[in-house]
Amino acid sequence: MTVSGNAAPRDHGDPGDAPSLPPPLIPVTNPARPTAAEEARTIVASTNTGTLASLATDGGPWASLVTYGLLDGAPVLCVSQMAEHGRNLAADPRASIAIVGPATDPDPLAGARVTLAGVVERPSRHALDAARAAHLAAVPAAKYYIDYGDFSLWILSVRRVRWVGGYGRMDSATGGAYLAAQPDPVQPHAADAIAHLNADHSDSLRLMAQTLGGYPDTTAATCTGADRCGLDLRVITERGVAYTRVGYHRPLNSIDELRSATVQLVRHARRDHEGEA
Amino acid sequence: MTVSGNAAPRDHGDPGDAPSLPPPLIPVTNPARPTAAEEARTIVASTNTGTLASLATDGGPWASLVTYGLLDGAPVLCVSQMAEHGRNLAADPRASIAIVGPATDPDPLAGARVTLAGVVERPSRHALDAARAAHLAAVPAAKYYIDYGDFSLWILSVRRVRWVGGYGRMDSATGGAYLAAQPDPVQPHAADAIAHLNADHSDSLRLMAQTLGGYPDTTAATCTGADRCGLDLRVITERGVAYTRVGYHRPLNSIDELRSATVQLVRHARRDHEGEA
Repeated sequence: MTVSGNAAPRDHGDPGDAPSLPPPLIPVTNPARPTAAEEARTIVASTNTGTLASLATDGGPWASLVTYGLLDGAPVLCVSQMAEHGRNLAADPRASIAIVGPATDPDPLAGARVTLAGVVERPSRHALDAARAAHLAAVPAAKYYIDYGDFSLWILSVRRVRWVGGYGRMDSATGGAYLAAQPDPVQPHAADAIAHLNADHSDSLRLMAQTLGGYPDTTAATCTGADRCGLDLRVITERGVAYTRVGYHRPLNSIDELRSATVQLVRHARRDHEGEA
Repeated sequence: MTVSGNAAPRDHGDPGDAPSLPPPLIPVTNPARPTAAEEARTIVASTNTGTLASLATDGGPWASLVTYGLLDGAPVLCVSQMAEHGRNLAADPRASIAIVGPATDPDPLAGARVTLAGVVERPSRHALDAARAAHLAAVPAAKYYIDYGDFSLWILSVRRVRWVGGYGRMDSATGGAYLAAQPDPVQPHAADAIAHLNADHSDSLRLMAQTLGGYPDTTAATCTGADRCGLDLRVITERGVAYTRVGYHRPLNSIDELRSATVQLVRHARRDHEGEA
């Protein structure tokens, strides 16, 4: 199926005039990454706002802005029965929430987002205080309306997760894997460290890309992300721009461990480089 | 229905511990505002990103990030059949899009947003080039994939619009009224003028609130918004904080007319004030 009368149909795999990505020339040493479930938990923990899809009375899909708190990873909504989405949830509990992570690129589709799908449930008597506290902790302004008679708390019981990390990075996860995962302890706090790496350690990043990252023909590399498993690198070669990954020797538990893990990566890269020389 | 075991049920009308809003003491001279259809057009024109609600194969609602262009106010999507939302639209054309306007307050629910609901349609042969151009104009990065065989353009035929301007400001509009309206020519460009009013003309704003705005007991007023019909004012009185409106003598066609319209408002307010004195 083509959308232009002039262009011949193309398979998605055909790069057309899209930038082509040169493959690595040697194996990537440690491409370890967080799982889709972890990525999803990280995005969901990064904000208090998402868009709910609920079912209107005619069965059509209804998109609407919502705020949420988190109870062990499950979104806790507080919506009014006077609002269409509140009536929708009361009539049919099927729901999903799309949540967009922090913007990292002017192109919105290059950024990370996630859809959590399942059914909403009223909190049990046992869970009510915790759900209320979870919503208020994330949405302080809810104190003005959370106890009104027309507002209800709903917990999204997550059955299915679709994570999209950007172009070409996407995966699904079960609700169980999502709930069992934890938000990344490094990624949300890494902006300053990434800026520092790019400003003051471009030689080290290039060396990492040349050895650990699989691109010995790297002329320049910048760090575009950091998480508990490793660094994302954007690599410039004479064959074009590529993206690769350098994983730490072991996953980190805190942003405080990022500096020493990065120093270790540089040492490893130097050793490899000298071994080759 | 109450959400807390400790609190007695409340009607939404009962302010509880929410801030109470003192009413005006004299009539508001000209409370003219853009219509819900205009507000919706303005929000939709303010960005290229929204959240689509489509129907999954099991009939459940599926929320997902989309980019869009605009063809005479109708969103034009470009989605892949390899993505769940693309398959959803191909199987059932019912859809809605939630779009959030520029953030104006730390509380996301204080900001403006809109839901456009209807059915998606493939552009007719006649409309195809215009739809493609509209999407590309709003989403330049789409040039890399818009002609791939798995991507399709869809136009949302808007049947129903729900606009929420913030707490207590909301209204519905028909698809016809939405399409017949225009985005506000002033609101998206008014930030500098508003900052100038608040920085250098607080006496004039107070005078406007005291006379035209219906709050003669105003001790301070700030401008919180401007559109083609008038100014939004946040008013401080000894009775509490209130929100009011001062409409220009006639609607504006361009941001260039805002300064003279505001000067006219100040003159009008002075005249009223001197008439009373």
